[in-house]
Amino acid sequence: MQSAPLREHIEPIRVRYSETDQMAVAYHGQYLVWFDLARTGYMEAAGYKYKKLEEDGILFMVRDMYVRYRKPARFDDRLAVRTRVTAMRQARLKFCYSIERTPEEGGEPELLATAWTVLACVDRSGKPRPIPEHVKSRFEVLPLREDEGRI
Amino acid sequence: MQSAPLREHIEPIRVRYSETDQMAVAYHGQYLVWFDLARTGYMEAAGYKYKKLEEDGILFMVRDMYVRYRKPARFDDRLAVRTRVTAMRQARLKFCYSIERTPEEGGEPELLATAWTVLACVDRSGKPRPIPEHVKSRFEVLPLREDEGRI
Amino acid sequence: MQSAPLREHIEPIRVRYSETDQMAVAYHGQYLVWFDLARTGYMEAAGYKYKKLEEDGILFMVRDMYVRYRKPARFDDRLAVRTRVTAMRQARLKFCYSIERTPEEGGEPELLATAWTVLACVDRSGKPRPIPEHVKSRFEVLPLREDEGRI
Amino acid sequence: MQSAPLREHIEPIRVRYSETDQMAVAYHGQYLVWFDLARTGYMEAAGYKYKKLEEDGILFMVRDMYVRYRKPARFDDRLAVRTRVTAMRQARLKFCYSIERTPEEGGEPELLATAWTVLACVDRSGKPRPIPEHVKSRFEVLPLREDEGRI
Repeated sequence: MQSAPLREHIEPIRVRYSETDQMAVAYHGQYLVWFDLARTGYMEAAGYKYKKLEEDGILFMVRDMYVRYRKPARFDDRLAVRTRVTAMRQARLKFCYSIERTPEEGGEPELLATAWTVLACVDRSGKPRPIPEHVKSRFEVLPLREDEGRI
Repeated sequence: MQSAPLREHIEPIRVRYSETDQMAVAYHGQYLVWFDLARTGYMEAAGYKYKKLEEDGILFMVRDMYVRYRKPARFDDRLAVRTRVTAMRQARLKFCYSIERTPEEGGEPELLATAWTVLACVDRSGKPRPIPEHVKSRFEVLPLREDEGRI
Repeated sequence: MQSAPLREHIEPIRVRYSETDQMAVAYHGQYLVWFDLARTGYMEAAGYKYKKLEEDGILFMVRDMYVRYRKPARFDDRLAVRTRVTAMRQARLKFCYSIERTPEEGGEPELLATAWTVLACVDRSGKPRPIPEHVKSRFEVLPLREDEGRI
Repeated sequence: MQSAPLREHIEPIRVRYSETDQMAVAYHGQYLVWFDLARTGYMEAAGYKYKKLEEDGILFMVRDMYVRYRKPARFDDRLAVRTRVTAMRQARLKFCYSIERTPEEGGEPELLATAWTVLACVDRSGKPRPIPEHVKSRFEVLPLREDEGRI
């Protein structure tokens, strides 16, 4: 029995060779895949498999997004994508993310990127539909942190 | 009025930055996307849009494939994917490909890769179905060339 | 002899099968690849091959970006990515984009997405460096259009 | 102290949303990324980080590959990529793979695909170089299994 809504999810990522480009860093478009994984992980941690939601006709489409790239990620890096919900309306959801590189041994994590996405809840035909209450109740809406003001 | 079945299609490709990896060459998995584009181009040249075929419930799934990488492709290279059907059965189709780099000015094209794929014709549920005769009649089955014996 | 700096570039895109996802639309992360292609096309139209710039040690890295998704793009759609520079500083460049779907026959183009990216000019070690004057002089900086205020 | 060379590595994969296509299955080209991850995992399990090997100027490039697709993989599936070395020469290495879907609960794993790749060991300029003995000694060469005869 889950008693409290989810506050935060941290999705571990390891940078794949296929995700690098000839600048020898992870291609910037790849980050959107990681945020997507982080949302799926967040929902699963909150008690919902996104796969199951889609089967039930509850789809989340990205409506808009912003990414601030700070330092490059490199092949084989271990990353942590910290993921929170910072706003929720009837048919919309805002996620905030930060990507940190986990140091190999000791050392401090390094902030590589911050980002947010707004998702629209839609049905299979693409029309807006309210996010079900039982789903909403599992996501805690947190205020932006000070360092997210920079986003 | 198209009078003869299609013998060969040449699909032009330009290597995208996102397709490179940190070896500063096109990632080897990317070639499968190019072969896919080449098949779509072949079908369109033969008078069928693959999009339309799928809408009509005629899907082609890759059943097996082989690729022989010879020389790397690089960012911004102009490639030509030479595409032919070399075998056709009731519900299967074999495509052979060669990828050549088009020289910037003068010079000879360079052979970068050769490959083949076998496609299965299936319906929406994934069950084998015969390739429609009107489609088959548009594809000329050509014998393997000598240099394709190397495939 | 090119007499005037480039005002706008329109990059034609055709949506690849590999770019779709199981929602049967182009995956949202894929748009960043298209904007990347549009920048490369813009630079080439302005007289500079991005490949050549990189070889000369002039790299453009994406610093931040925003995308507003309006309507989904679908497999085989023909798109036009309208691309302009809307700000230029010593080591930074801002590109604005809009993606329109080109109608099959007759009809009006449909606006699918708008976006912007800020690029930082860096050297091979990733340190900021000024955009060379001869490059800057080829890019016309245009004011935001009214409909880009919505971005 | 590692006493015996590595016989087999099993790389766990979870199918990403971005890896699906509009047939609602994992895009066939994506499998090559999974095999790549499996090789990296194999090398790490054998005591070598591929990242480190590359930094030391020991690169493995895919020379040719074959994939046999049996059943589709779907979004969120948990897969296991079973990976073994089945041939090793001075500057070449052959990997065999099978991809199984791990059942949600109970049930039997399902075989989704089998494949092999031949890798060439090259230096940074792309010229063949012998695989270092200390690396070779960590990989056990296993005979093809009967079901790999089908490959």
